[in-house]
Amino acid sequence: MLGIDPGLVATGFAVVEPGPGGLAVLATGVIGTTRDLPLEARVHRVYDGVCRLLDAHAPALVALEDLYAEYRFPRTALLMAHARGVICLAARQRDVAVLTLAPAEVKRSVTANGSASKEQVQRGVQRLLGLVDLPRPSHVADALALALTGFSRAGGRLA
Amino acid sequence: MLGIDPGLVATGFAVVEPGPGGLAVLATGVIGTTRDLPLEARVHRVYDGVCRLLDAHAPALVALEDLYAEYRFPRTALLMAHARGVICLAARQRDVAVLTLAPAEVKRSVTANGSASKEQVQRGVQRLLGLVDLPRPSHVADALALALTGFSRAGGRLA
Repeated sequence: MLGIDPGLVATGFAVVEPGPGGLAVLATGVIGTTRDLPLEARVHRVYDGVCRLLDAHAPALVALEDLYAEYRFPRTALLMAHARGVICLAARQRDVAVLTLAPAEVKRSVTANGSASKEQVQRGVQRLLGLVDLPRPSHVADALALALTGFSRAGGRLA
Repeated sequence: MLGIDPGLVATGFAVVEPGPGGLAVLATGVIGTTRDLPLEARVHRVYDGVCRLLDAHAPALVALEDLYAEYRFPRTALLMAHARGVICLAARQRDVAVLTLAPAEVKRSVTANGSASKEQVQRGVQRLLGLVDLPRPSHVADALALALTGFSRAGGRLA
């Protein structure tokens, strides 16, 4: 399961798979791009990063944050959607199914509260996965939360 | 010059190149996707269509409609941005430069009026290119207008 929190500045990712002792975190990180690059170069970097993850880990499913009903920063949302487009493309080109999960569902799944704060999501993910450190930055915690919720929705259990 | 009016439901395109008798329209059309397909399949179709155009015509430049400051339909704009992301990616993968043009600049360029109606853009494009028929649908007229404005901006002259 590859959880992805899409963004043009920072796309958080987390690869989580079942292991002998429960769910194991195989990889986490952020694909970042800087504002000085043209948009074409930025979407290419996001696409390239996601392709590498898909090829290296061959997940059965991508758990991708769904679109919100409303965004506080419409322009940021439009740029995010460019990144989200190439992420969807990368998955489709490899026949990996994409499961979209609403932010509130993901928060509820890892904290039992659909409007949890970023810190509550970080703590919920840390607890569910038995991590020593709090997952940082929040993009990684969000990607882990997406992967965990994806497992839950795909028939597994979280804890 | 490949003009592209991006959209998830309909992406208009127009390939325009200088010929012996002035600018010649080599190809126009619409890449369409239907709402019953998952988003991944829809962006893949747009990407695939644009890749074919780039490979068949090898344009030096893509003239792409720039983002608006504000959209009347934010959700439609977000979906458009998914398509725009994969269009930018296709160009980048082939090292084709992308020139983004503001809608008002394009309208002004083909009608002398930055807030021209769709019909005015269609008539302006028809006149500038000496077309027998009015270009239809408006997505194709918009793509032609983008290509024409791209030429103008790249140092050519429109009429």
